[in-house]
Amino acid sequence: MRAFVMKEIGQVGFLDKPIPQPGPGDAVVRTTSALICTSDSHTVRGGIGPRENLTLGHEGVGVVHEVGGEVRHVRPGDRVLAGAITPDWGSSAAQNGYPSQSGAPLGGFKFANSKDGVFAEYFHVNDADANLAKIPDAIADEAAVYCADMLSTGFMGAEKGNIPIGGTVVVLAQGPVGLMATAGARLRGAGLVIGVESVPSRQELARGYGADEIVDFTSEDVVERVLELTGGEGADTAVEALGADATFQTAVKITKPGGTISNIGYFGEGEFVRIPRVEWGVGMADKTIATGLCPGGRLRMQRLLRLLRTQRIDPTRMTTHNFRFDDMERAFEVADKKLEDVVKVLITF
Amino acid sequence: MRAFVMKEIGQVGFLDKPIPQPGPGDAVVRTTSALICTSDSHTVRGGIGPRENLTLGHEGVGVVHEVGGEVRHVRPGDRVLAGAITPDWGSSAAQNGYPSQSGAPLGGFKFANSKDGVFAEYFHVNDADANLAKIPDAIADEAAVYCADMLSTGFMGAEKGNIPIGGTVVVLAQGPVGLMATAGARLRGAGLVIGVESVPSRQELARGYGADEIVDFTSEDVVERVLELTGGEGADTAVEALGADATFQTAVKITKPGGTISNIGYFGEGEFVRIPRVEWGVGMADKTIATGLCPGGRLRMQRLLRLLRTQRIDPTRMTTHNFRFDDMERAFEVADKKLEDVVKVLITF
Amino acid sequence: MRAFVMKEIGQVGFLDKPIPQPGPGDAVVRTTSALICTSDSHTVRGGIGPRENLTLGHEGVGVVHEVGGEVRHVRPGDRVLAGAITPDWGSSAAQNGYPSQSGAPLGGFKFANSKDGVFAEYFHVNDADANLAKIPDAIADEAAVYCADMLSTGFMGAEKGNIPIGGTVVVLAQGPVGLMATAGARLRGAGLVIGVESVPSRQELARGYGADEIVDFTSEDVVERVLELTGGEGADTAVEALGADATFQTAVKITKPGGTISNIGYFGEGEFVRIPRVEWGVGMADKTIATGLCPGGRLRMQRLLRLLRTQRIDPTRMTTHNFRFDDMERAFEVADKKLEDVVKVLITF
Amino acid sequence: MRAFVMKEIGQVGFLDKPIPQPGPGDAVVRTTSALICTSDSHTVRGGIGPRENLTLGHEGVGVVHEVGGEVRHVRPGDRVLAGAITPDWGSSAAQNGYPSQSGAPLGGFKFANSKDGVFAEYFHVNDADANLAKIPDAIADEAAVYCADMLSTGFMGAEKGNIPIGGTVVVLAQGPVGLMATAGARLRGAGLVIGVESVPSRQELARGYGADEIVDFTSEDVVERVLELTGGEGADTAVEALGADATFQTAVKITKPGGTISNIGYFGEGEFVRIPRVEWGVGMADKTIATGLCPGGRLRMQRLLRLLRTQRIDPTRMTTHNFRFDDMERAFEVADKKLEDVVKVLITF
Repeated sequence: MRAFVMKEIGQVGFLDKPIPQPGPGDAVVRTTSALICTSDSHTVRGGIGPRENLTLGHEGVGVVHEVGGEVRHVRPGDRVLAGAITPDWGSSAAQNGYPSQSGAPLGGFKFANSKDGVFAEYFHVNDADANLAKIPDAIADEAAVYCADMLSTGFMGAEKGNIPIGGTVVVLAQGPVGLMATAGARLRGAGLVIGVESVPSRQELARGYGADEIVDFTSEDVVERVLELTGGEGADTAVEALGADATFQTAVKITKPGGTISNIGYFGEGEFVRIPRVEWGVGMADKTIATGLCPGGRLRMQRLLRLLRTQRIDPTRMTTHNFRFDDMERAFEVADKKLEDVVKVLITF
Repeated sequence: MRAFVMKEIGQVGFLDKPIPQPGPGDAVVRTTSALICTSDSHTVRGGIGPRENLTLGHEGVGVVHEVGGEVRHVRPGDRVLAGAITPDWGSSAAQNGYPSQSGAPLGGFKFANSKDGVFAEYFHVNDADANLAKIPDAIADEAAVYCADMLSTGFMGAEKGNIPIGGTVVVLAQGPVGLMATAGARLRGAGLVIGVESVPSRQELARGYGADEIVDFTSEDVVERVLELTGGEGADTAVEALGADATFQTAVKITKPGGTISNIGYFGEGEFVRIPRVEWGVGMADKTIATGLCPGGRLRMQRLLRLLRTQRIDPTRMTTHNFRFDDMERAFEVADKKLEDVVKVLITF
Repeated sequence: MRAFVMKEIGQVGFLDKPIPQPGPGDAVVRTTSALICTSDSHTVRGGIGPRENLTLGHEGVGVVHEVGGEVRHVRPGDRVLAGAITPDWGSSAAQNGYPSQSGAPLGGFKFANSKDGVFAEYFHVNDADANLAKIPDAIADEAAVYCADMLSTGFMGAEKGNIPIGGTVVVLAQGPVGLMATAGARLRGAGLVIGVESVPSRQELARGYGADEIVDFTSEDVVERVLELTGGEGADTAVEALGADATFQTAVKITKPGGTISNIGYFGEGEFVRIPRVEWGVGMADKTIATGLCPGGRLRMQRLLRLLRTQRIDPTRMTTHNFRFDDMERAFEVADKKLEDVVKVLITF
Repeated sequence: MRAFVMKEIGQVGFLDKPIPQPGPGDAVVRTTSALICTSDSHTVRGGIGPRENLTLGHEGVGVVHEVGGEVRHVRPGDRVLAGAITPDWGSSAAQNGYPSQSGAPLGGFKFANSKDGVFAEYFHVNDADANLAKIPDAIADEAAVYCADMLSTGFMGAEKGNIPIGGTVVVLAQGPVGLMATAGARLRGAGLVIGVESVPSRQELARGYGADEIVDFTSEDVVERVLELTGGEGADTAVEALGADATFQTAVKITKPGGTISNIGYFGEGEFVRIPRVEWGVGMADKTIATGLCPGGRLRMQRLLRLLRTQRIDPTRMTTHNFRFDDMERAFEVADKKLEDVVKVLITF
């Protein structure tokens, strides 16, 4: 089968690989749709260290091709969605309530990390019963594929933000995950959602997904503006959706005492992420810092699919580009170099 | 001033009373709008015991008339909203996180219970700084008054229901509080909201406030239908919004193991509320039963007003009737006898 | 191998059975110690319906005899503890945070329910990596076996009771699970622990495990006495550890508004468990009712074993009787008929 | 009356001041015992900015001298304890569940900050009903005074640390607040408590208050040693009880994915508190950072006093020095310069 791989740090391309075989509890899925993620670029640039001929991609849907002998819930022919994170559900971390950390820190992150990803004609899913959800007929593959990571991670930003009903939320950066955090804040009942973003097309998407106010950090002081919009109090919740030290500091500053900084940004650089001491109340202002990694699992995916089925959200508005798998090299270039106001690139197999 | 009172059990009417005087931390508000609540009927029928010439009503807004010497946040002329529940914020119960229970069980319920209510030209508010919220210019009194009890109680049903994003929720009974629980379930991100109701006009309101499905208990078996709609699993959350033993039992039955029965119904009759033993998993199925009493306080009211300001919800669709205070006797009759498909009766002063 | 079985409702005895075989992820354990539980009696009396030649017992430890090909964490020769509840960790219920409900209500309860139990020379454990914990050398089998159910269930009563540090707790009934709830309340930082019990030997054990006060319901009014001991307020937490309608009602009555009734009792009889309406604050007093089923899993077992290793508790004081497996019939009779002031009966293989 | 004040930054001494007068809801207390806190030294050195003739001290008990006309729960002659933090309970922050942040970040911190403290013959308490607790006869002033800050703050470190029963906890620094976090970890049911400390007398106190293991950071690598003691996993909870950037970093490193860093240290220096990026899982390892400021209020103080009454803990073992108020200058010098292996200095009036 054809696979789009990271040959080594900095180099991508197609490669022929054998179709994977399922273990007793596993499944192999024939890919139909996939999305390119910023993390794929991080990985190619060496963000998780060197890899050799690793198939990229962690957001994918498809049709079950083959299952192992212990699999009960899915069978060949089922249209299925795999979470980007595919935990080991029996691990200590999962038993502790943190399946994404199974086996090791971020250990549930297997696709395009500790094993081949979904940018191939077929991909392998561990613990298929626990990690695959069937896609209802009413939902197209092109929509379902957004549940794998974008909805799961973005909504987690809102969920871990402990948003009170009617509360105030700032989402810092309106990339695809930030947009879904914006939508998630609305879904959790925020009374005021403020999106921080400078790119006009993303500002517009943010408004569409529920931002009541947009703050453009290139022309306004974010801290001042948020204080103004919240009556001088600061926000109940700030979601950091970029993964930059400066943005994180802003998040701490704009959160009120008793509020939560919910981090969903991937911090790729530097030795430290820095908390501004005074605005953190010298360590005593009840400003909680929460984090997490994209929740996976069949139940999570089912709940996200349900939100699509009942039309709570339409993630396909983020699809700015659509390529066939054959054009993966160009597709990756567009996503990687952030050309043409790209938000998300959909790959059709 | 004129007040509409419960003269004794079963008898209501107008009475002249002196305008109340504020203590050091209190305020007196000149009433502009109020709503009649089912609780007013309960009270008149003796639900909280005998009362003599007690002014009825606990959902009211108005303009500050006079404040005590210690009041800092509001002053005469401010348009204000008082929560139906006006806790003592320094009480042990409030320090424990349960301000509605301040001083005694349900001790924060003062209006038309332990002191005169809001169906009068003026009403008294204890601890005005903590219990009054200013109403933003953009919000009409006729909308703001819904925050006092309907939004606060209904939304609490959703909040205490511990709804997972994308989860399934059943709201049993679509009276005004049930309708707001339905809206609250949507605001908390439910993926499927099922309203149980038999009255067509209320079914329609329920759909408008966010019910995806309506189950009519007069023609369908609620338990069977909910199981069907939830893939045989039962709901993540059931909100009991009626206060009837049979409905409570249904709520337990339709909730899945690990789910929550969130009670916002007032149980006015019988010695017991009964949990069906087997469907409760013989006491071991992780089905939590949560309760509460309408949250009050300035912060709560501010957050609810914010949801009106950002147009998350329009509660005035529930206003089926509007009377002037002079016609209070007829207004009360309509509400009390549930005439003319009444949902909520608004009183204008 | 020899197994002690429930032949049919009401009849127990020895039977020869083949040594079980492990599936790919399973283990077979050679039993060394086991405990008889009140549930075994319930089962024999038909509490979970008819069974034929079902091996009894769910509290057991032993030495790994054989493992399936997928098992990684344990191997033959390891001394191991299995939780009484052995969930399917990939199930929806487990992913939802309620592994004990995996597959069905109480679905994690497999031993002596949906498969053979531990009163046999060998027993089978599903998902061995997730459900078995190695026993540290410093801990004897006779102590470790208490973690399977007694510590796990009793402590859960305290954990789900949401005890504030320095709070007041009442544990109703000081059988072995109630005793461990008493110990659990101490372990969670209760400032006052009140045990309700009439049997002198259990009262003494309760004091030893941390009860500050004992209330004998045969000579005192429990509600009155608890109110007296809590300054008229009621308790922060009441743990129902008997499973009787009357006791449950008392639990509701003695819990203060904002407090929690934590149920660990198995309700074996009657159509309903009844909540006293008025003392439940007509459904509005913020009295939460929590339930659950003995948490299982490797992590849980490891944490409980850790508490034994650091000598936080000595459960072996509950061992009033010790029989060899050969004398199982007499052992069961003592436990079943509650002879000789029995608390727990240890079986040595 | 005599008061021990900070005359200006760097200078302390006695001053005569008038006895304070209570407002309607306030009380004035005649001081009987007080404790010196490290914060007093921070304040004198300018930690909270310049102050002129501010009475120092925030840990005090005494006898009610006079109350305002609205006070109901205490009266002259009552022996009382005031929390170090005396919130405004009606404030938005308190209604939000964070009373210590009332009015402003750390706004509940009034004694020796925004008003005169307790190192005087009399001190003033705002909202006396909500902020004073009566001291039971069985508890001596010299013990009760520890509840004001040491127990409340230290235990908060454990409470916010979200310790699972049987979990592993590291408390970094065994000063008086760290010692109480150690005791708090035991009270919350930790299965293994590791204290980090180099001073032998404090190591000994730590063992007495419940540390199972002591790690001396001057001779061992804390990260390595904690990993070794926790089987390579890291701790469920790390309590930072020093307020130093390096210690905070260690706290992040030794906490396992899914664990909590609970900060109770006061960070007095530097622009930033730094999170080590990689060990924080690049922002995705579910390592929560929690903070807070000493909980105050009557209920909190009653619960802490209850723990003294039922002998769960004896804080007086930390009293290394006792001076009369007349010798306050020498007392302050001992505490400030950390002479003679001082832990806590008790002042008797």
